[in-house]
Amino acid sequence: MTTTSVPLALLGLGHMGLALANRLLDAGYSLHVYNRTAEKARPLAERGARVAERPGDAVTRGGIAITMVSDDAALDGLTLGPDGIADALGDGVHLSMSTVGPATARLLAVEQARRGGAYVSAPVFGRPDVAAQGKLWGVMSGAAAARARVAPLLDVLTRGRTDLGDDPAAASVVKLGGNLLILAANAALTDALSLAAAYDIDPATLAALYGDTLFASPMIKNYATGVARALSSHAPNDPGFSVRLARKDVTLAAEAARAAGASLRVAETVRAGLDDATAAGLGDADVTSLPLA
Amino acid sequence: MTTTSVPLALLGLGHMGLALANRLLDAGYSLHVYNRTAEKARPLAERGARVAERPGDAVTRGGIAITMVSDDAALDGLTLGPDGIADALGDGVHLSMSTVGPATARLLAVEQARRGGAYVSAPVFGRPDVAAQGKLWGVMSGAAAARARVAPLLDVLTRGRTDLGDDPAAASVVKLGGNLLILAANAALTDALSLAAAYDIDPATLAALYGDTLFASPMIKNYATGVARALSSHAPNDPGFSVRLARKDVTLAAEAARAAGASLRVAETVRAGLDDATAAGLGDADVTSLPLA
Repeated sequence: MTTTSVPLALLGLGHMGLALANRLLDAGYSLHVYNRTAEKARPLAERGARVAERPGDAVTRGGIAITMVSDDAALDGLTLGPDGIADALGDGVHLSMSTVGPATARLLAVEQARRGGAYVSAPVFGRPDVAAQGKLWGVMSGAAAARARVAPLLDVLTRGRTDLGDDPAAASVVKLGGNLLILAANAALTDALSLAAAYDIDPATLAALYGDTLFASPMIKNYATGVARALSSHAPNDPGFSVRLARKDVTLAAEAARAAGASLRVAETVRAGLDDATAAGLGDADVTSLPLA
Repeated sequence: MTTTSVPLALLGLGHMGLALANRLLDAGYSLHVYNRTAEKARPLAERGARVAERPGDAVTRGGIAITMVSDDAALDGLTLGPDGIADALGDGVHLSMSTVGPATARLLAVEQARRGGAYVSAPVFGRPDVAAQGKLWGVMSGAAAARARVAPLLDVLTRGRTDLGDDPAAASVVKLGGNLLILAANAALTDALSLAAAYDIDPATLAALYGDTLFASPMIKNYATGVARALSSHAPNDPGFSVRLARKDVTLAAEAARAAGASLRVAETVRAGLDDATAAGLGDADVTSLPLA
């Protein structure tokens, strides 16, 4: 059986899941797909993907199931709920690419191992447009043999990955920490550009300064440009990383820290800013819309 | 009169001031220097710099005076205090490279203009070792003719600069905003690497991930590496950007925002972290020592 003929399912067809599915179809994989609202699967069906009506129907015992859903509850339901994938997958591999907490990762790893299979935690950094180009960066952890088995898939879906070993919680923690860094930079850019605007300094000038020379970072530049745009246009930016999902991630980071006896100062502040943005009706806007809250 | 024969003074010989003085001597400038404790001037005297006993004695009417001191009070005293440089400089240019608040910049600009001269605000990003290599990044604002006059000096002292126009407060505000970004990133790295350490994940692995791939930023990498070192060694890092100076800068940013009717959420959190570090005896350590507080 060649790599592309492994029974492969992809569950969760939001912006990220759709981008991943299209990459896999481009690379010649046969795909079973599932989404809670089936209509999102239609463009994939037109490309030859088979659409399942229930999660468990999408996966094959001993195969690989990729999941990309919005939060821990959705992942838990999809995996262990009625018609969930855990039993149907059996001794297969659950390649979980959602951003979830370390407790969920450990629980699902134990449950899949009880069924003879494995859970690999492989959340990714990047927005849907980056995913469509295969330029995401991944972090990965879980049982070694299962990590080796999903490696060819991750080669298609990402430009590279950091391997964090056997503990399925590790990749979750590193992903949450990375998102915290992004959100703290975004909140600090909101401070710095708002301060500058209060002194009649052009936010776009600053976005270039901070992104090109001071941090010399494409990511800082992207976020700074978004914050500058929100400040200048007084209009929210379209979501790539929404306030709602950001709030979920920073809450998970704070919970994961508390569970391990650490306390995070910046995380609480970033969350307060996202709370305010939500209250201001910006929940579905991009996080770079914070200056409008 | 060639550029290098303009009467030139440099006042304030801490680590940054000394590095700037040596660059100017290397480039062939004649220098008058002043420092509150004269003994720091000795290595410069051995290289031909003339050492003044009082600030006003270091500068020449119509010449250029560069200042690099630690805070607003020191700059104010050096400029307008007894034996200060403002009167002695007269219609010359005060090239102020310290990180100070916008109110101080505007006050000193008005005072120097009253004497027929000008104040150019030109704070720089970078540590003393970067200054020694001429690789600082500058931001500059002030009267146009005075900016043109000091340009050759900044060409020697920096690798480039962002010109922010006539308002002497602008460069101060942008410098404070930039330091806020750096300190927020440093505080978020402290959160993220502490969270990871609580899950037994190697901080050095994360420093590489966040610096090389996620942000792809030399500055993030430097700070992440420092935070990782503090976490692993349980020892503070030697100061490049000390907790004490960082606290001063973030306080100035918050004050400048309040004066302009803006409020900064991240700044207050970053300051609280620096307060804790100070209380823990880390005031003279590098800001990357925060995980030890």
